[in-house]
Amino acid sequence: MPMDPKKLHTLLQNVAAGNISCENAQAVLTGHVHEELTLDPWRQARTTIGEVVFGQGKTLEQIRISLEELGRHHPVLATRICAAHGQALLDFFPHGCLWEEAGLFCLGADLLSADPKAPNSDVIIVTAGSSDLPVAREALGTARFLGLSAHLVTDVGVAGLHRLQPHLPSLRQAKVVIAVAGMEGALPSVLGGLVKAPIIAVPTSTGYGANFAGLTPLLAMLNSCAPGVGVVNIDNGFGAAALAKKILAGS
Amino acid sequence: MPMDPKKLHTLLQNVAAGNISCENAQAVLTGHVHEELTLDPWRQARTTIGEVVFGQGKTLEQIRISLEELGRHHPVLATRICAAHGQALLDFFPHGCLWEEAGLFCLGADLLSADPKAPNSDVIIVTAGSSDLPVAREALGTARFLGLSAHLVTDVGVAGLHRLQPHLPSLRQAKVVIAVAGMEGALPSVLGGLVKAPIIAVPTSTGYGANFAGLTPLLAMLNSCAPGVGVVNIDNGFGAAALAKKILAGS
Amino acid sequence: MPMDPKKLHTLLQNVAAGNISCENAQAVLTGHVHEELTLDPWRQARTTIGEVVFGQGKTLEQIRISLEELGRHHPVLATRICAAHGQALLDFFPHGCLWEEAGLFCLGADLLSADPKAPNSDVIIVTAGSSDLPVAREALGTARFLGLSAHLVTDVGVAGLHRLQPHLPSLRQAKVVIAVAGMEGALPSVLGGLVKAPIIAVPTSTGYGANFAGLTPLLAMLNSCAPGVGVVNIDNGFGAAALAKKILAGS
Amino acid sequence: MPMDPKKLHTLLQNVAAGNISCENAQAVLTGHVHEELTLDPWRQARTTIGEVVFGQGKTLEQIRISLEELGRHHPVLATRICAAHGQALLDFFPHGCLWEEAGLFCLGADLLSADPKAPNSDVIIVTAGSSDLPVAREALGTARFLGLSAHLVTDVGVAGLHRLQPHLPSLRQAKVVIAVAGMEGALPSVLGGLVKAPIIAVPTSTGYGANFAGLTPLLAMLNSCAPGVGVVNIDNGFGAAALAKKILAGS
Amino acid sequence: MPMDPKKLHTLLQNVAAGNISCENAQAVLTGHVHEELTLDPWRQARTTIGEVVFGQGKTLEQIRISLEELGRHHPVLATRICAAHGQALLDFFPHGCLWEEAGLFCLGADLLSADPKAPNSDVIIVTAGSSDLPVAREALGTARFLGLSAHLVTDVGVAGLHRLQPHLPSLRQAKVVIAVAGMEGALPSVLGGLVKAPIIAVPTSTGYGANFAGLTPLLAMLNSCAPGVGVVNIDNGFGAAALAKKILAGS
Amino acid sequence: MPMDPKKLHTLLQNVAAGNISCENAQAVLTGHVHEELTLDPWRQARTTIGEVVFGQGKTLEQIRISLEELGRHHPVLATRICAAHGQALLDFFPHGCLWEEAGLFCLGADLLSADPKAPNSDVIIVTAGSSDLPVAREALGTARFLGLSAHLVTDVGVAGLHRLQPHLPSLRQAKVVIAVAGMEGALPSVLGGLVKAPIIAVPTSTGYGANFAGLTPLLAMLNSCAPGVGVVNIDNGFGAAALAKKILAGS
Amino acid sequence: MPMDPKKLHTLLQNVAAGNISCENAQAVLTGHVHEELTLDPWRQARTTIGEVVFGQGKTLEQIRISLEELGRHHPVLATRICAAHGQALLDFFPHGCLWEEAGLFCLGADLLSADPKAPNSDVIIVTAGSSDLPVAREALGTARFLGLSAHLVTDVGVAGLHRLQPHLPSLRQAKVVIAVAGMEGALPSVLGGLVKAPIIAVPTSTGYGANFAGLTPLLAMLNSCAPGVGVVNIDNGFGAAALAKKILAGS
Amino acid sequence: MPMDPKKLHTLLQNVAAGNISCENAQAVLTGHVHEELTLDPWRQARTTIGEVVFGQGKTLEQIRISLEELGRHHPVLATRICAAHGQALLDFFPHGCLWEEAGLFCLGADLLSADPKAPNSDVIIVTAGSSDLPVAREALGTARFLGLSAHLVTDVGVAGLHRLQPHLPSLRQAKVVIAVAGMEGALPSVLGGLVKAPIIAVPTSTGYGANFAGLTPLLAMLNSCAPGVGVVNIDNGFGAAALAKKILAGS
Repeated sequence: MPMDPKKLHTLLQNVAAGNISCENAQAVLTGHVHEELTLDPWRQARTTIGEVVFGQGKTLEQIRISLEELGRHHPVLATRICAAHGQALLDFFPHGCLWEEAGLFCLGADLLSADPKAPNSDVIIVTAGSSDLPVAREALGTARFLGLSAHLVTDVGVAGLHRLQPHLPSLRQAKVVIAVAGMEGALPSVLGGLVKAPIIAVPTSTGYGANFAGLTPLLAMLNSCAPGVGVVNIDNGFGAAALAKKILAGS
Repeated sequence: MPMDPKKLHTLLQNVAAGNISCENAQAVLTGHVHEELTLDPWRQARTTIGEVVFGQGKTLEQIRISLEELGRHHPVLATRICAAHGQALLDFFPHGCLWEEAGLFCLGADLLSADPKAPNSDVIIVTAGSSDLPVAREALGTARFLGLSAHLVTDVGVAGLHRLQPHLPSLRQAKVVIAVAGMEGALPSVLGGLVKAPIIAVPTSTGYGANFAGLTPLLAMLNSCAPGVGVVNIDNGFGAAALAKKILAGS
Repeated sequence: MPMDPKKLHTLLQNVAAGNISCENAQAVLTGHVHEELTLDPWRQARTTIGEVVFGQGKTLEQIRISLEELGRHHPVLATRICAAHGQALLDFFPHGCLWEEAGLFCLGADLLSADPKAPNSDVIIVTAGSSDLPVAREALGTARFLGLSAHLVTDVGVAGLHRLQPHLPSLRQAKVVIAVAGMEGALPSVLGGLVKAPIIAVPTSTGYGANFAGLTPLLAMLNSCAPGVGVVNIDNGFGAAALAKKILAGS
Repeated sequence: MPMDPKKLHTLLQNVAAGNISCENAQAVLTGHVHEELTLDPWRQARTTIGEVVFGQGKTLEQIRISLEELGRHHPVLATRICAAHGQALLDFFPHGCLWEEAGLFCLGADLLSADPKAPNSDVIIVTAGSSDLPVAREALGTARFLGLSAHLVTDVGVAGLHRLQPHLPSLRQAKVVIAVAGMEGALPSVLGGLVKAPIIAVPTSTGYGANFAGLTPLLAMLNSCAPGVGVVNIDNGFGAAALAKKILAGS
Repeated sequence: MPMDPKKLHTLLQNVAAGNISCENAQAVLTGHVHEELTLDPWRQARTTIGEVVFGQGKTLEQIRISLEELGRHHPVLATRICAAHGQALLDFFPHGCLWEEAGLFCLGADLLSADPKAPNSDVIIVTAGSSDLPVAREALGTARFLGLSAHLVTDVGVAGLHRLQPHLPSLRQAKVVIAVAGMEGALPSVLGGLVKAPIIAVPTSTGYGANFAGLTPLLAMLNSCAPGVGVVNIDNGFGAAALAKKILAGS
Repeated sequence: MPMDPKKLHTLLQNVAAGNISCENAQAVLTGHVHEELTLDPWRQARTTIGEVVFGQGKTLEQIRISLEELGRHHPVLATRICAAHGQALLDFFPHGCLWEEAGLFCLGADLLSADPKAPNSDVIIVTAGSSDLPVAREALGTARFLGLSAHLVTDVGVAGLHRLQPHLPSLRQAKVVIAVAGMEGALPSVLGGLVKAPIIAVPTSTGYGANFAGLTPLLAMLNSCAPGVGVVNIDNGFGAAALAKKILAGS
Repeated sequence: MPMDPKKLHTLLQNVAAGNISCENAQAVLTGHVHEELTLDPWRQARTTIGEVVFGQGKTLEQIRISLEELGRHHPVLATRICAAHGQALLDFFPHGCLWEEAGLFCLGADLLSADPKAPNSDVIIVTAGSSDLPVAREALGTARFLGLSAHLVTDVGVAGLHRLQPHLPSLRQAKVVIAVAGMEGALPSVLGGLVKAPIIAVPTSTGYGANFAGLTPLLAMLNSCAPGVGVVNIDNGFGAAALAKKILAGS
Repeated sequence: MPMDPKKLHTLLQNVAAGNISCENAQAVLTGHVHEELTLDPWRQARTTIGEVVFGQGKTLEQIRISLEELGRHHPVLATRICAAHGQALLDFFPHGCLWEEAGLFCLGADLLSADPKAPNSDVIIVTAGSSDLPVAREALGTARFLGLSAHLVTDVGVAGLHRLQPHLPSLRQAKVVIAVAGMEGALPSVLGGLVKAPIIAVPTSTGYGANFAGLTPLLAMLNSCAPGVGVVNIDNGFGAAALAKKILAGS
């Protein structure tokens, strides 16, 4: 079966731009084996989480092609989408869903509808301060994309522990707690001593001076005196939600 | 009810040695409120994992007292127990269980009996090289203490990926995979792309030169390109098993 | 007035050993101006805290000479005294006071008598875990040497916050709180949100792996989300007590 | 009592924007319990220092809402306010007080009126060089907001110690000295050897090359050879003044 | 022989601008010894690789002069050329070759023509993700400039190892494999365990948070558990190709 | 004698802007003691090098005032002057001398006239690559300002050692050699093994990746295997020339 | 075929000691599939370099078993063997070859016989100072084990470059140059500018203070201004020789 | 002329021990060209400082051979000599001079005789505390070996600046001041603002916690706000004296 002309055009443009090696293009043109351009469409079946487009440092064109390819058969999510790229993607995919404050864009899913079960979600995302919100939203949107029941509890940093009190009943029934904190990163330790659920700790780059762009809360979380805390990369809300998905997939 | 004389003697010796503040002793002597000496006996009910004795940097006497107090009603585990302390604890608690190679000692549980379900355990602990074994054993013994079904897969580092092949069926049915690796710490990324279970990554201080005592695999694991990886502290086999326990407690 | 022969002998021995420069010796021998061998005997009048002998890395002889000189008119304290040096100093100064577990030795004061006002001391020293005790004892002994009313509250780390509850009344009336913690170093933040007193935070080298010998709690304490926290060097119990003295000297 | 419509509108806009979780909104709408949106209005009574708005990285809207809520009953301070936000806040709160060079904005207090008692203030803020001025001003403005008597001494870095001489009488009567320095950060050590008051050391990011954005003076201050120095985070003028407030509140 | 007037003018302009010291100018004007302005025209004969112009941080004028001098007798390459400089150089040298996406410009060679032998090149450049492409292109263009047979294999990161499978035959016949990866930098270890060729590992600054601008993959590659891996600086595609050239020059 | 009205106006404006404390202003107004506003006019007599204005991070107004005050009786130098500030200063001080490429501006001296003694200067400034030129020019201009005989030797990095050969005679008669290098910073070691003069090593932030903004050459220079090398801060051309001045002042 | 009793005994002992998991033992006992205990005997065919036993941190028993297994059909090398282990291995394998100063032990090869072709070897190992010798010897012994023609040139650090002169003819005909250096690590840069062969750079932990156990030469080598340098881990003489083997295997 | 038998024996022993390569031995045996075993006997003529034996990490035999070779015609110094090696060297070279506290041993010079000119020496070595003495003694002994007039001023750290006062007259006439300090390393800045001589700053590893083995004073000294400070490696007393020698050689 001959290749679709528009697709062929795109392919050749990518070869010209150096995005696709000659070898890959030749494979596509002869046997259609690599039609997906080294994308990994079976990852979801293998690992419960399909391939996601990491948008930071990519051109709009690269993001668009990846979304188009991956989104042909499944819903697909792109993260770290800046505002300008987000609007341009909406123009291209009018049925897509953009959550600008979370830096997320997706096809085939809804990132914005709140969880009807709240405050009894399986996943509760807790932030220490309001500067941690963008990372917490990336986690919340990703969790929704992955089909998890999730909601946010904000601004319960350890300098005012009484603010945590009213949330303890729902935190104690949660299956996974994602703790998002910058500065000294003490929130996961406090939560880890209070609840049964595993804690996924997300350090944020919130802070200044000796915070060193998130290194301080990262180290603090790795040294938590409360057992049962798993840490992901600085500002990695997506990774926290993906880990929650893998934890809940087995339950 | 008056205090048991032997207990009183121990208490006063601890005051003399500065282990217990006067205030605490007074509270114990008057109202018996703090009989447990600031130990935290209800932690298990609250968090699924009871208080554990971290033996590193403690005197034999401190470890012994803590085990005695915490072990009165529940099984209790001590980690980072050196060989000399381990033997001395066995003399004191003849029914205790010592696993010297894992640095573990416990009362009321069995650390050494292999899991009858293996190779279909819920938790599989995978090591990159044989130098990672002590950490992997700390994780295995802790998992057993916490009542988890667990077994080891050893020496499947990424320089010889074919060695991973025969273990894939059991890894794919596991509920949690603990990946223990030093050097470049690439094992969790490879496993994360192959299996459905959440990966708990444990960097070890195995290596030399620019390994910086485990910093290199720690950073590598935090930057894993495979989603669904939660990282614990360097050499923290105990923490990995505790996180597995919390994950499985909810399933 | 000619120099005392024993003193002259000591002086010459020190010149021979390179402890005292020729220039200094000459000054002493001609005008007796520098009899104190560059010690700083007026520091107490100037700064409220007299010169203290830092024993780490010094020979027994160096420590002994400094104690002898400084202790002629005032009480004098030596810190970081190892057990062997401590016993040898007791032989030399039979009226001295040694607190081995705190690494302290002093002349002219009592390091060991508990504060009769406890639990209503001006200074309360709080530790997160029992591994923090040596540093807390250095702070306690120094505080006593400096004439402060002080006592210890131990083992109230943030993984079991309910343990802090019974101590809140005394913590809320304290004038200075010294918080000693290793691992993630979250204790000062929690205390800073609960009490009126200034918090002096002392990171300890307790921990392992990514704790980096106290760097993690040091950074965490500097990034505390609770205002009113001043940080001293890692394991610097002496410095914390000295700062408490300066704070209370003005009140 | 039904909710004020404008307030309700703001609440719903915040829910839509993800600033407030559904759970929190529900609590506000039903019982008015959390009208303050997780703000912490009782913090001042508990810790002597009320909640302060940290403006860095926040939107104008977030800052405005927080000021409005917190400022209803008490004076309230916002720090790290950029020039553009400062002017916009003045438009919104015409009675507010803006100190642009200090990055401060407040309601209900005066940041700019000099202390009539100077040069005999309780708090003296000393800078090493003129590049340290913005941090020193943040400390000065915060001190004034907190009701402290404070003034500045500038440009007395250790390369020209004689410049410190004329200020020694007032420094010797001060109750707290705040030393602000970048580069090698030696000023607190020199001051600590000259005066009775506790020294609060503030490292600044002034310098270049191996200064590493304030890391060098931070480390130097933590290693001060003069006892009685407490260190706060890099560029944290606010934190220094808050610690001074807690120190003086007890005197 | 008198100096060419245009050349003399350029020389004097450079003296005025401080680009050339008086001493150098004098040497040129009297004996014509240093006509090349401290360039190193015999480097190629000595080391197989001629002098290359590193464009980062240089003015357009500095780059242009260097290209003109070095390109008089040999082909010459400039790296790290930004888009604006690239276009301006094309205006000046209309026969030059610009590869904007690779940041390369050269005279006397062709950077863009694909290798006719692919997929059986001597040098195969493998990338983990599409963000690594700019560095891989710098390596590919440099390899072409140096006369090597080379091609790209893209997007075969370790989270989807099966993508590597179809390329194994050509990788196994390659003489040098250049592995370009950011994030956890595991690709060289996996390749090193699969192929006979030496691996040149190029860490990239792709990633975020605890990636620390390429430090994480750099450390990981230095700690590779597979022997036979040589590492070059972060993002140093040029250096990788130069090392490949030296390796193949001797074969 | 009453104060000059214009001066008084400036003073009061500075008080209003918080540049001068009330205490300082009062001292100036009553006794004229501190007319220089904490500047240090006797520094030159004390240390051979007068006070210099470090322009980085300062406003144009701050720089202008300092130049005016310090330049009243002596020549005065300002460093790290950006192009815009430089032009504005020329407008204000038409007799000043601006060297834009070196970031220098001065009153009462000439930064640009080459040394007539070259190539037999007392101070020779050697650079490894052309990216090191701005730092070398800062050193050259400062040396000229301080009255030293100095000239530049450029582009003699260790990858082409033969380029050093023609300069050895003059380097061997120099009294001080300033070696400016980025990347691996090996130039001072090579020079230190070849010449008699003390080597002042200046690491530059030239490079990328694992250069870490000059940290790599800084560390390399501190570890030089050739004795007789003194290191100054990264990019600190001014400091190198000042050290040369102090060395030559005593000869 | 039933298992050899002695082998069975060893197997069971290893299970008891936790060296082999139950699963692995079961596999061995039933189908003899994993007789090699996860060793990787086909690695040599796949990558030209067989599996090597890294002795550091292993027990004598672990090293002995690995040597026995791997050495059954091929020569086998163990690195980082301490003196005590070396002697004990000689007792066990009387035909083995021990090079104590290099920390090497092997079966089936000769580490000690010098290369008859020297000084015209393919591989020349160059050291900066005599403290680099142990690492250079590890490289030399490994090269000999791998069948390469190799010899040493010692003590030609950059502080005395003339010492390099007499070796230039042989260095210029070498196919690979391994440069071993501590301190400032400048040797590879100088060599890279003088010879045609690829340079393998090995930083050593020789030095003190700001050398940071080899970090300084590691960074310097990664930033080499001479192209064609590949860096291996600190003190990794083995890795350098393995890379040389892979380079020469293709020639 | 045939080789001296004893010398030949030594040569062959060194070949056997791997200290000398076959190539070097062959060169010595045939043409006697390299009789000095790659030592650098002309270094003194070239650089004013002859080759010195760095004893740390070397065997007694290596040190002894180097001293014997280098000491044949000139005085020779060995540094970092431990007590045991020192005594053994004295047995071998009974006319040698050992200064145990300074870690120095030399042939042909006297390290111990004090300078008759003191306190008017050309070089004054100033220490902040008594823990800095070993490094200061290494500098003093080296200075004496190099023929400089030098003496020590001890214990004048910045916490007690008045102790510096009596030494100012001699410091102001010195030609070079070497400032040795650990902890916060502020001494060079203070001295640099007081005296005319160039300051050579030597950071020491004295301190604990966040001192990081001398990194803190190293960074502080590089960031000195006083111009005219050159820094050498941590604990490098030898290097400071060598730089002083080069400075004074030209005067």
